Amino acid sequence: MKPYREMTREELQAETLKLRAEFEQIKSLHLKLDMSRGKPSQDQLNLSNELMDVLNSDSYFLDSTGTDCRNYGVSGGIPEAKNLMGEMSEVAGNDMIIFGNSSLNIMFDQVSRSYTHGVCGNTPWCKLDQPVKWLCPSPGYDRHFKVTEYFGFELITIPMTPTGPDMDLVEQYVNNDPMVKGIWCVPKYSNPQGYSYSDETVRRFANLNPAADDFRIYWDNAYSIHHLYDEPERQDTILELLHECRKAGHPDICFKFISTSKVTFPGAGLAALAASQKNLEDIARHMSVQTIGHDKLNQLRHVRYFGNMANMRQHMRRHAATLRPKFEAVEETLEQEIGGLGIGSWTKPNGGYFISFDSLDGCAREIVQRCAEAGVKMTPAGATYPYGRDPHDSNIRVAPSYPPLDELKKAAQVFALSIKLVSAEHLLQEKEQEKA
Amino acid sequence: MKPYREMTREELQAETLKLRAEFEQIKSLHLKLDMSRGKPSQDQLNLSNELMDVLNSDSYFLDSTGTDCRNYGVSGGIPEAKNLMGEMSEVAGNDMIIFGNSSLNIMFDQVSRSYTHGVCGNTPWCKLDQPVKWLCPSPGYDRHFKVTEYFGFELITIPMTPTGPDMDLVEQYVNNDPMVKGIWCVPKYSNPQGYSYSDETVRRFANLNPAADDFRIYWDNAYSIHHLYDEPERQDTILELLHECRKAGHPDICFKFISTSKVTFPGAGLAALAASQKNLEDIARHMSVQTIGHDKLNQLRHVRYFGNMANMRQHMRRHAATLRPKFEAVEETLEQEIGGLGIGSWTKPNGGYFISFDSLDGCAREIVQRCAEAGVKMTPAGATYPYGRDPHDSNIRVAPSYPPLDELKKAAQVFALSIKLVSAEHLLQEKEQEKA
Repeated sequence: MKPYREMTREELQAETLKLRAEFEQIKSLHLKLDMSRGKPSQDQLNLSNELMDVLNSDSYFLDSTGTDCRNYGVSGGIPEAKNLMGEMSEVAGNDMIIFGNSSLNIMFDQVSRSYTHGVCGNTPWCKLDQPVKWLCPSPGYDRHFKVTEYFGFELITIPMTPTGPDMDLVEQYVNNDPMVKGIWCVPKYSNPQGYSYSDETVRRFANLNPAADDFRIYWDNAYSIHHLYDEPERQDTILELLHECRKAGHPDICFKFISTSKVTFPGAGLAALAASQKNLEDIARHMSVQTIGHDKLNQLRHVRYFGNMANMRQHMRRHAATLRPKFEAVEETLEQEIGGLGIGSWTKPNGGYFISFDSLDGCAREIVQRCAEAGVKMTPAGATYPYGRDPHDSNIRVAPSYPPLDELKKAAQVFALSIKLVSAEHLLQEKEQEKA
Repeated sequence: MKPYREMTREELQAETLKLRAEFEQIKSLHLKLDMSRGKPSQDQLNLSNELMDVLNSDSYFLDSTGTDCRNYGVSGGIPEAKNLMGEMSEVAGNDMIIFGNSSLNIMFDQVSRSYTHGVCGNTPWCKLDQPVKWLCPSPGYDRHFKVTEYFGFELITIPMTPTGPDMDLVEQYVNNDPMVKGIWCVPKYSNPQGYSYSDETVRRFANLNPAADDFRIYWDNAYSIHHLYDEPERQDTILELLHECRKAGHPDICFKFISTSKVTFPGAGLAALAASQKNLEDIARHMSVQTIGHDKLNQLRHVRYFGNMANMRQHMRRHAATLRPKFEAVEETLEQEIGGLGIGSWTKPNGGYFISFDSLDGCAREIVQRCAEAGVKMTPAGATYPYGRDPHDSNIRVAPSYPPLDELKKAAQVFALSIKLVSAEHLLQEKEQEKA
């Protein structure tokens, strides 16, 4: 089929009629499918069930230093958990604090304590005369944006590229404006594109000269070991930021976040933060008032389950085996159904949890709406931009992980059909307006 | 022996010399004992080891509504956990939100979100011109006071009585001063006295008419089912606050906190909050930005372990069996060693985790110091008052739970000896000053 833009008005009319009929047919199936969130599937959850066998009533509950993990104490995490999560983060165990089950919660609390008490002795952000500004590489992760929106910060959109955020713009903002206090980053297999930052991008981050002493890079390495392919050449690697920041003489400008939410269980994993000693001490002071400590039994459970990083990597290969066909199914469906039609483009990531789709300008919201009508739930259009407003109304995040493969294939068909229908109608309307 | 105050200077001198010799002897034993924190003992932890057997790789991981507890979702807690914790709190499951493992963390976050975003639409406390004032019934729980001190509030000491805080003073502050935004309460088996609020006290709390719309009672019912005795007449009961507040037409003025930290494991229990629907909705809005949800597997584990409240109460009887002899040992040692000497008084609680000791004015700090010299760690003197400053320097919190009974008996001996020595020296000095 030829690209929609090259079709005549009559051809587009015919195509639209045909697509509408197809759409009505699919609607009559009353599907109930979900491609909206990056949730692991039941098959993936089952991969970690033996985590529940690690501790039982006969277990030895002491950590390597003799601390009883059942009792109060050790607010920064047991040493072996720090070491394991440190290895996952490519830093020393000593660079880590282990928290509860949610890295989003760590990020929220980090923003909150900066707001209420300031970063390392700087003025609390709630006491500043002007609103804090926050850089948001977009399309990006909606829950990141929501945290900083919730605190009333001014969110600034930074365009994303296949090598990372537009670093010229990042440098311009960070190095000149003292009200710019942070930036959200998902540096590896980014949400939603699956892009990984180039070495140059990471080095430029490490070499920022922030106008604000309390500027911090919020580096959410959520998909650090979440490859889809076993072949090394299809596994993205990125430079380790904390090390690069130390090399650049700016050890304090970053917070790294990591979790096992998509390694073991999203509801019951481990979440952790890596940072310079100065930052860790600042955070520990705050934490000592906030809590007596996080769940150390779950730390012990994870440490004993994996034993070492090699086993965790092996475990991730099993996740990849169930995720890979799903990503490929979406990619194939899109290629088959709309390849060459000139009505959209999409990413083909080597890892992570998402595919990013870009429709013709002005079509995304309607495509998601059509999907909903046909029983397929997508992430709301616009969600990948600050304030939920996509200036081009073109980006849609596709989350292939949760539905079983056969359902996902149906959902991808509905998605492709919705794209075609909305695009055809949109172009037809354009042609009719030209004519009028 | 006669009361120290009735001794002549010579008698006191002789007593002091004798006590110093005893003290040197005890120091030479190089003890290393700890009565400083309300930590369960190893025997108590062992009571809950079978909690670790509840879930294994063959378990059914869905809650009663079909939610997979391994995955993301359900940020307020699974229904059966709400019901169990609700019953523990004497409210409906629907009045509860289940959080992570730490009720202190819930309280901290509740203060923090009031500070950053305000309570139910009221002005965020960080935006007020004057500092927030907070009522602190004292002696009280040091970690409570620290939270509000950390946010820069003005802490106001309210004297504690055996029936609860001085309610005349509480009413005077709360009903007249709009800057008074909260009060810390441990209403049952209070920390450190083991007092339980009388019905009149609870009703007066429920009938407060706060000058501030965003005043809240922080009701930390940490020891709700933590009796030391099986006999009903030795089990304290208190009125349920949320119900009383509803009856009084003030459903929104309280937050209730509860946890299983001292039921199962302090490091890995469940913590929860109970409040009015209006308050719960306000909190849920905040939480939806802060986290995707807390650890639901641990919720499931607790629910399946206990099954119902009757079993949880039965479990608490086993805790009581190990705690009771410890409380009695401290009480007996104090009675034997300093009873009738007129140098101190102490509480004899029916539950909870602490005994409160009051020395002669001006002696507490020195007694704790002497204990430390002899290898017995006590809670720092002053800790039970706002800012760590006891105006009489007389209150010492005794925590008998953690050491094994034989060690505890030694520690209590050291404590009693330190009280005698410091008191005798103190009175001798008084007599010498009178003479001079």
